[in-house]
Amino acid sequence: MLGTETPVTFQPMGKTVRAASGTRLIDVAAGAGIALDLPCGGEGICGKCRVRIRRGLGEPGAAEQKFFSQKDLASGWRLACQTIIRGPITVEIPDTSLLASYHKILEEIRGTAETALAPTVRKQYVELPAPDRRNDEADLIRLEHALGPFDIGLDFARQLPGRLRDAGFRGTAILADRELIGFERGNAESPACALAFDIGTTTLVGMLLDLSTGQEMALASRLNPQTGIGDDVLTRILHSQKGPAELAELQQMVIAAVNAMIAEMADEAGIARDQIYEATFSGNTTMQQLLLAIDPRWLGEVPFVPATGRGMLVHARDLGLHIHQRGRAYVAPVIGGFVGGDTVSGILATGLLDAEGPCLLVDIGTNGEIVLMAGGKLSAAAAAAGPAFEGARIEHGMRGARGAIERVAGNEVLSFDVIGNVPPVGICGSGLIDLAAEMLRHRIISPEGRMSAPGQLPDDIPADFRRRVIGYENQTAFLVAGEAETGTGRPVVVSQRDVRQLQLASGAIRAGIVILLRRAGLEPRDLKQVLIAGGFGNFIRRRNAQRIGLLPNEIDPKRIRYEGNTSLAGARLVAVSASARAAAEAIARQTEHVDLASDHGFQWAFADAMIFPETD
Amino acid sequence: MLGTETPVTFQPMGKTVRAASGTRLIDVAAGAGIALDLPCGGEGICGKCRVRIRRGLGEPGAAEQKFFSQKDLASGWRLACQTIIRGPITVEIPDTSLLASYHKILEEIRGTAETALAPTVRKQYVELPAPDRRNDEADLIRLEHALGPFDIGLDFARQLPGRLRDAGFRGTAILADRELIGFERGNAESPACALAFDIGTTTLVGMLLDLSTGQEMALASRLNPQTGIGDDVLTRILHSQKGPAELAELQQMVIAAVNAMIAEMADEAGIARDQIYEATFSGNTTMQQLLLAIDPRWLGEVPFVPATGRGMLVHARDLGLHIHQRGRAYVAPVIGGFVGGDTVSGILATGLLDAEGPCLLVDIGTNGEIVLMAGGKLSAAAAAAGPAFEGARIEHGMRGARGAIERVAGNEVLSFDVIGNVPPVGICGSGLIDLAAEMLRHRIISPEGRMSAPGQLPDDIPADFRRRVIGYENQTAFLVAGEAETGTGRPVVVSQRDVRQLQLASGAIRAGIVILLRRAGLEPRDLKQVLIAGGFGNFIRRRNAQRIGLLPNEIDPKRIRYEGNTSLAGARLVAVSASARAAAEAIARQTEHVDLASDHGFQWAFADAMIFPETD
Repeated sequence: MLGTETPVTFQPMGKTVRAASGTRLIDVAAGAGIALDLPCGGEGICGKCRVRIRRGLGEPGAAEQKFFSQKDLASGWRLACQTIIRGPITVEIPDTSLLASYHKILEEIRGTAETALAPTVRKQYVELPAPDRRNDEADLIRLEHALGPFDIGLDFARQLPGRLRDAGFRGTAILADRELIGFERGNAESPACALAFDIGTTTLVGMLLDLSTGQEMALASRLNPQTGIGDDVLTRILHSQKGPAELAELQQMVIAAVNAMIAEMADEAGIARDQIYEATFSGNTTMQQLLLAIDPRWLGEVPFVPATGRGMLVHARDLGLHIHQRGRAYVAPVIGGFVGGDTVSGILATGLLDAEGPCLLVDIGTNGEIVLMAGGKLSAAAAAAGPAFEGARIEHGMRGARGAIERVAGNEVLSFDVIGNVPPVGICGSGLIDLAAEMLRHRIISPEGRMSAPGQLPDDIPADFRRRVIGYENQTAFLVAGEAETGTGRPVVVSQRDVRQLQLASGAIRAGIVILLRRAGLEPRDLKQVLIAGGFGNFIRRRNAQRIGLLPNEIDPKRIRYEGNTSLAGARLVAVSASARAAAEAIARQTEHVDLASDHGFQWAFADAMIFPETD
Repeated sequence: MLGTETPVTFQPMGKTVRAASGTRLIDVAAGAGIALDLPCGGEGICGKCRVRIRRGLGEPGAAEQKFFSQKDLASGWRLACQTIIRGPITVEIPDTSLLASYHKILEEIRGTAETALAPTVRKQYVELPAPDRRNDEADLIRLEHALGPFDIGLDFARQLPGRLRDAGFRGTAILADRELIGFERGNAESPACALAFDIGTTTLVGMLLDLSTGQEMALASRLNPQTGIGDDVLTRILHSQKGPAELAELQQMVIAAVNAMIAEMADEAGIARDQIYEATFSGNTTMQQLLLAIDPRWLGEVPFVPATGRGMLVHARDLGLHIHQRGRAYVAPVIGGFVGGDTVSGILATGLLDAEGPCLLVDIGTNGEIVLMAGGKLSAAAAAAGPAFEGARIEHGMRGARGAIERVAGNEVLSFDVIGNVPPVGICGSGLIDLAAEMLRHRIISPEGRMSAPGQLPDDIPADFRRRVIGYENQTAFLVAGEAETGTGRPVVVSQRDVRQLQLASGAIRAGIVILLRRAGLEPRDLKQVLIAGGFGNFIRRRNAQRIGLLPNEIDPKRIRYEGNTSLAGARLVAVSASARAAAEAIARQTEHVDLASDHGFQWAFADAMIFPETD
C-alpha cells in the first residue's frame, strides 16, 4: 500500500487531510498545521507526542510499550512519532500534546527600538504623457522621467510596455529599492504589504505588515515541520548531508509551512498575496541557510563557518514563496555559525546599540546566545546549553506548553502553576529553575548540586518538602506531582540527573556571560541592564534565575527585562525600514564573535558556573 | 508521415542532418548552418533560393512552375523555400544560392575608435587564510576582505563554501561588474573570454574575444534563421503577434543560431564555453527586442516606441545562451524604434563623438540609419529606403552574394564584375547604383528617372549601350547580361520599374540626410566627413553614389569613408570596455531622435531627392 493516499482525520479539530501510506503521523500533522510537541525530534525518546487513535489502530511498537500501560495501549494511546499511516485513520490530539501555547508566547513583540517608517518597497503614482510621433521615446525611459533611474528584471521589462498601455500611462509604480517590480492601473489605494518571519528551530512565527503604516495586519505561528527530521539544528545538518534531495526536503518543509502561514495571514487581513512585496526572515544561522538551501555542512564542523555572513536579498520566487511574483526575500545577516540573524535582530530590536552603560542580551534556549554591549562595542557568543531549558533530557521535562508545570513556589507547602490550568503532564524550564531555587533554599540540594537522599535531609525542612524527596529509579528525586494529580497517571519528578542537566545548561550560559564580561574588563555588577529574549524568557522568575546562577545575582532584578520575540521584532524592523536593514548589516559585521570554547578561561569559568551561588 | 524524422543531405557540403517530415527545406538548411539567400523571406516570390534535388524529388508547385522551365524542373531544379521534406532527400546547393560571401563582408571591422581595455569581467587570484576557531568568519566575508565588496546571486552563494574549500582557499575569483560569478582553483591561467554579436535582420555575425588582450580569437557568421519567417522586421513583428509561441519561436531561432556560432567559435579557438563570461549584442531595435523576447508589437505601430531604450544586462541563461552558467548578456541601448543598438554601436565605433566638424554616419540598408554629429550634438533618423539596395523588389535583384553583378562600368562598351567570378545570376545594390550612374551619364535615363524607349534614345549613345535598351515585359529595360552569359539561362535586366525603386530608396536616404542637416542649420557642403557603415557600403563606388544623389555630391569623395561592420565593432567595444558601455548608454540618451515623417519639410525633401542630380 506504500504510497497510496488515505484520509487522516484529526480530532477535536475535525480536520481531514490525505496522506501517502507510509508517512509518519507527525509529518501528516505538521502538514495539516497541527503543531505537536516533539522535544526529542520524533525519535520515540521523550514520549511527549501522545495521541489517541480512534479508528485505524495498529500494533504498538517498542517505544510505545515503554510509555503506555497495556490498558492505555488497548484504548488507543500511541506516540504520533511512532505511528505510520497504513490506511484511513482518526486521531484524537490531546491539548497537552500540542505546542500551541508555546507559539503564542513567540508572537509577542515588545520592541523597545522603533524606527522611521521607510520601507525598501514603495508605491508611486505617476501620470506619463502618452507617446506620439513627437514624443516617441522608449517606455522605460518615459517612466524613468517620472520615477528617476530604476533597475528592472528581464521578465518585467517584457511586461512593461503592455502594462503602461493597459493603464493608459497613468498608474502606480511599485519599487523595491531601485528595482521596478510592478505597475498597476490608476492610483492603487491597496496597501503595499510585507512579511516578517522568525524562523526558529522549533517554531515559525510570521507577521503581516502594512507598509504604509508599519502596523501589524495579521499574525501566525506554527511548528517548524523540520522538527519531524530532528529537534536540534545538528540533527538537521546531518540529515542534509545525505544528499541534495534531503537539503531540498528540509528547505521545502519550511517553505511549505511559511506559504501556509502567508495564505492564512493574507486571508485574515483580507488582502491578496500579490500585494505582499517582500518577506524578511530572521533565525539562527542553520535555519537561515536551510531556508536558502545553502548547504549547512560547515556549520556542523569545527570551526562552524557560516556561508554568507551578510544578509541575502533574493527573489522570493527563487525560494518558492507565494507572494508577488517579483517580490523579494531578505534573510538577515549573521554574526557567526551559532550567533545568527535572530541575534542580530535582537540587538536591533532591543536598541542595544543605544544602551546607556554596559548591557547584556541573553536568549536562553538550546543555544544560549549572549551579547554584550559595552564601551560602544558589541561582542557575542553562543553557549551550548543543551536542551534542558526546553524540557529535553529532563526525566519529565517538556516545553512551556499546555500541561507544563511552569512555576513552583512554597515556603512550607509546595505549590505549582500549570500552563492551561490542566492537570500537569511534565515540567518546563521555568518550573525546573523555580524548583531548583526552592530546593537550594531548603538545602535539599547542595551548592554543588548534590541532592540529599531521603534519610540525609537537614532537620529543618518543611514536612511537605521532606516527603517529596524520594528514591526513584535508583536515584534520589523530588516528587513534584503525584500520579493521582497528573494528566498522565504517572508522577512528575525531578531527579538528581535532572539537576545535573540544569547545572550544565545554566553553567554554560553563565560561563558565557562571565567570559564576555571579562573580555570587556567588566564584572557582573557593572551591568546596567540584562535583557532576556525568546519564548522561554517570558516564564522565568528573575530572582530564581539569579538564585541558580543562570543570571548574575549581583544586579537588581528590576534591571532584568523581558523583551519578547526579538527575532520577530527585528524582522519587522528590517521589513519596514531600509535604514534598519543597513543597521542590521552593520551590527552583524561590527559585533565581535567570541568562540567560547577557544577562550582560555572558559573551562574554568564553566566549572565555576556549575556551582550554584551560595547567597542564601 | 508528418513529424517522423528523415535524413536530408546537402551537397557539395556533404552534410547530412535529420529533419521532421513536413519541415521546409530552407529551415532545415538554416538549422544545418547553410545560409541560403532569401530576399523575399522564403515566400516563393524572388526565386533566389534555387537548389537541385538529386534524390527525393517531388512535384513542382505553382511558384516553381513560374521560375523554371519544364526541362529544369525535370532535371531537379526547385526553390528551397517551396520544398517540403517528405522523405529522404539529397539536395545540391549552387554557390549562387548561398549568402556566404555577403556575410564575410560583415565580419570586417575597421573600427577607427579604440578604447582602453577595461572589461566588466575580471579575474583575480586570491589567497585567503583558511578558517579556524580564532578566524571563523563567514566564507563570503572572508572573500570580501580580499576582493572588496561584491554582489552574489543565490545560486552561487550556495556553491561558494564548497568552491573555496575545494580550492584550499586559494583560487581565482571571476567578477562581472560587482557580481561574483565564479571561483576557480589556483591561479587560473585560462583567458576570460567574451562574445560580441551583430544581430542583423539578415545576418548574424559573432566575434570571440580574449578579455586579457581585447583581441579577436574567432569569427563566425550565418544567416539569421528568422529570415525563414520574413525578410524584413515588419513581417517578423506581425508573426510575433500571432501569440506568445510565435514570439518565443522567433527568439529561439536567433538564440539557436547564436549558440551554434558560439560552439563553432569556441571550438575554433580551443576554449571551453564556460570560459565565456559575457556576450554583447548590437542590432536594430526589433532584432534586439526579439532576442530578449520583448514583444515588439509597439515597434510595428505608430509612433514605433521601443520598450527599454537603455541597454539591458541580463543573465545569459535567461536567454538560453550556452556560455558560463552565470555569464551575462548585454544588449545595446537604442535611440528609437528604427534607430537601434546597431546605430549606437556605429556612433561609438566610428568615434563620431570626437569628429572634428560636422560628420555624417550612414548605414545603407532596408532602413537607412543616418546620424549627424554637428556642434557637439548628435541627431539620428531612420529613412524607410525599402529593400531595393538588398536586391529585393528589383526584377533581377539579389544581395551582394556570389553571382551578383556588383560593379558596372564602361565608356563605350559596358563591363561588369561578378562576385565570385562566376556567370552572373542577378544584380545587387552597388551594381544597380553603378548602372544607374552610367545610364544617367549616357542620358538613357532622365534626371526624373524616365528611361528612354529603344527608339527615343539620344543619338550620341555608344552602340553597346544602345543595343541594351530593350522592351521587356511591357516596359523599357536595360539588358545587363544576356541569357547566354548568365548562370541561370535567363537574362539579367534592369527595368524602368527597377529604376523607380532605386529612386525611392536613394531619395529616402538622401531626404533624411537633408532634413538632419537642415535642422542643424547646415548644408551638405559643410560636412567634413561621411562615414558609411554596414555590409552594403563596402561595394559602392562613392562617385556613383554621389552621381545618383544617394550621398551628397557637394563633398570630395575622399571624405567618404567605409567603416565596415560598425555594429559588430561597437559590440566588441562594449564587450572589452566598461567605459565604452557607459559611453553607449550616454550616446543613446543624448542623441536626438528625429522622426522624419513628422518633419514638415520631409515630403518636399523626399520629392526633391527623388530627382537625380543634374551634375554632368
